[in-house]
Amino acid sequence: MSETGRASFRGRPLRAVDLIAQKAAGGRIPADALRWLVDGYTAGVIPDYQMSAFLMAVCWRGMTDEETTDLTLAMAESGVQLDVSDIAPLVADKHSTGGVGDKTTLVVAPLVAQLGLPVGKMSGRGLGHTGGTLDKLESFPGLRVEMSSAQFRDQLRRIGIVIAGQSADLAPADGKIYALRDATATVENLSLIASSVMAKKIAAGATVIGLDVKCGHGAFMKTPAEAARLADLMIAIGDKLGRRTVAIVSAMDQPLGEAVGNVIEVEEAIATLRGGGPADLRVLAIELTTDLVVAAGLYDAETARRRAEAALDSGAALEKLADLVEVQGGRREDVAHPERLPHAPVELAVFPPRDGVVAAIDAKQVGLLTMQLGAGRAQKGDPIDHRVGIRLLRKIGDPVRRGEPVALVAAATEQDAEAVAPALIACYRFSDSPVAPPPLILSRHGTVK
Amino acid sequence: MSETGRASFRGRPLRAVDLIAQKAAGGRIPADALRWLVDGYTAGVIPDYQMSAFLMAVCWRGMTDEETTDLTLAMAESGVQLDVSDIAPLVADKHSTGGVGDKTTLVVAPLVAQLGLPVGKMSGRGLGHTGGTLDKLESFPGLRVEMSSAQFRDQLRRIGIVIAGQSADLAPADGKIYALRDATATVENLSLIASSVMAKKIAAGATVIGLDVKCGHGAFMKTPAEAARLADLMIAIGDKLGRRTVAIVSAMDQPLGEAVGNVIEVEEAIATLRGGGPADLRVLAIELTTDLVVAAGLYDAETARRRAEAALDSGAALEKLADLVEVQGGRREDVAHPERLPHAPVELAVFPPRDGVVAAIDAKQVGLLTMQLGAGRAQKGDPIDHRVGIRLLRKIGDPVRRGEPVALVAAATEQDAEAVAPALIACYRFSDSPVAPPPLILSRHGTVK
Repeated sequence: MSETGRASFRGRPLRAVDLIAQKAAGGRIPADALRWLVDGYTAGVIPDYQMSAFLMAVCWRGMTDEETTDLTLAMAESGVQLDVSDIAPLVADKHSTGGVGDKTTLVVAPLVAQLGLPVGKMSGRGLGHTGGTLDKLESFPGLRVEMSSAQFRDQLRRIGIVIAGQSADLAPADGKIYALRDATATVENLSLIASSVMAKKIAAGATVIGLDVKCGHGAFMKTPAEAARLADLMIAIGDKLGRRTVAIVSAMDQPLGEAVGNVIEVEEAIATLRGGGPADLRVLAIELTTDLVVAAGLYDAETARRRAEAALDSGAALEKLADLVEVQGGRREDVAHPERLPHAPVELAVFPPRDGVVAAIDAKQVGLLTMQLGAGRAQKGDPIDHRVGIRLLRKIGDPVRRGEPVALVAAATEQDAEAVAPALIACYRFSDSPVAPPPLILSRHGTVK
Repeated sequence: MSETGRASFRGRPLRAVDLIAQKAAGGRIPADALRWLVDGYTAGVIPDYQMSAFLMAVCWRGMTDEETTDLTLAMAESGVQLDVSDIAPLVADKHSTGGVGDKTTLVVAPLVAQLGLPVGKMSGRGLGHTGGTLDKLESFPGLRVEMSSAQFRDQLRRIGIVIAGQSADLAPADGKIYALRDATATVENLSLIASSVMAKKIAAGATVIGLDVKCGHGAFMKTPAEAARLADLMIAIGDKLGRRTVAIVSAMDQPLGEAVGNVIEVEEAIATLRGGGPADLRVLAIELTTDLVVAAGLYDAETARRRAEAALDSGAALEKLADLVEVQGGRREDVAHPERLPHAPVELAVFPPRDGVVAAIDAKQVGLLTMQLGAGRAQKGDPIDHRVGIRLLRKIGDPVRRGEPVALVAAATEQDAEAVAPALIACYRFSDSPVAPPPLILSRHGTVK
């Protein structure tokens, strides 16, 4: 079998079945063959059923870092590529592998831009139990995330910060392959995850890439070791393709911050950009910002961290967010007064069944309940309600008392709130003895150690 | 992932993606879920890309004997099933996993029928380097292999022997899955091979099944251990489904007998049915016949073997072949005088480059050269030339001399013959020292030991 596969690389025309056989036998696929496969699949010449068999063979046998990089580049180059090198020598992007309550981009992007490193980010929509940055941003009435590459470039030049929807012709191979992976149980392979993330970053022109690899019950990566392997793999790809790439593995056993939803996450991000906000969100934002700015060579780590703290505490970074909101069609004053944004009409407090200490919060379940309230979507294209969500007033390690609420449900109707409340309290585990808050940052990877 | 898969078996509706995930995680698929998958795929509700991912996951993780049996039954029951139990208490089928020069069915079927066990066989077409029984039979002008199940039953009742083309509505799931496996490099998995073979036997109503598992360079199974595993697996399926199943693992490092082609293989089979023919073909035919007849409970092994030898030597078995040829539209006298059948106009002798002993003959390459001459087909539906082929005058262990031919090429044109001759001689390896002829029967499996 492997002979057949090999023979196809010796002058014989490439055939998809030979490449599948080669991978199923544990062989390596050369760069030109991978590109042929990706291009043929994108063009519709290679059928779904051959690509899905190939992807399952990849799940079986794995890919080398080199193959993963080749696949990334082939997908990045499968459509239009954005070149922003004439606008700034370095342009940053920040990506999270998907968490619950993860509004970090809304803090990091303005902060990094404020420190002098332009941020040009193309983002996908949230799906499943994890929210998406675009959906959160659209809590600002009038704000548009769809734009042409000319508009993207123009905004990047004018204000040094853009967060846009991913254009359909950006890495189309990735979009098509991702949909196939979703239907064929070939999602959970590190090489396929890493190449999918990195292909979009590469195609969108980012030269400094900051990755937040979420780890825990609420994330794709369940163990720190697995998350660290994914981080290292994405960094290896970035390095091979000449992009300065850094990564932080951060805990996602409980949601990040207090708010899980859209407008309430925006409020929390704004509070953080004013020097307040939950401690975990502030720390993660500062550390990611530090690593990005250091990778760009702007400052050493100590200076970067100090300047980041100052830019939050002075409200300077918040002005960058206001710039973005205004230029993308929202109202500047909504950033100053997020409490005026449309909020859910119903707020229901949820009480603990006993006194004690919070021992655990099931992040994935909180995400699913938020989705059930209408804040997220089960399927592409589902409408979402930006107002609804869940606010966790007590996190792991916090003491609770029977008469004091641990969480609030922000819902469209009382029925919705009542339906979610019992399941929400079931997301909590309580303890009688003290519980130490878990570490937030589990490991750091890339050029910044 | 495996949780999702499992949950789908606890009251939630089945989803193909969950079954793929379940198998990719190394889990077992319950019988009802496998049947749902096979039926959905056959009906076109489950798309090719999900089935191909599932098949690759099976190649990765394997299937238990129980899953393999469940898959076999689901495929067997995916279309029309032939019931011949009212015609005879036991009806035999004989199947080879595909060899070069393998005309064994043409000897075994008449011999078994002559010994009193009816043979009702549905057969597929030959593809690639191995020939098919139907193609060989069609060397008899006028002979038809396509027939309705009513015709099949009628002939079985009248003369106790039928060799027919597999009807399109027999195990249609297998046909569809086989085509997909061929395009997705998921052919070489024992469970998929075994279930494909057995589903057709089960659907065609066979109650006594004799399997000839070919082993060696010219066969799918390369090692005796692997071939024995396949034999045992098919027997396990047969046992679980109440069919008396026996198997012989036979060597396929060199072609079986001397003739490789169509009409020349028919001639060789007829010679064997007259008590002559090559020793290896005679031995294999007698042993397979013995195991089938003993499995059916007609005779003990010693009696069966003695009667089989007698039926060959007396020409009685040949009369059964003549019955079949006549009833299926051929001429009875062609069986008596196969030399009158259309033969290739060109015969070219091939000489060894040196004196010595034949040490090896590359069976697969001989098969491919025969195909190149026009005797086989690369693609379904390709026309074939029944006249052409290769005759191996010297086999492993035979001495050769420079002036004496080792093989003959029977071709449609001199050009064809000349084109094949050098490659044919390159199939031979010669030795200076004596070489022992390799063993033919490597192992026996099933109810007859």
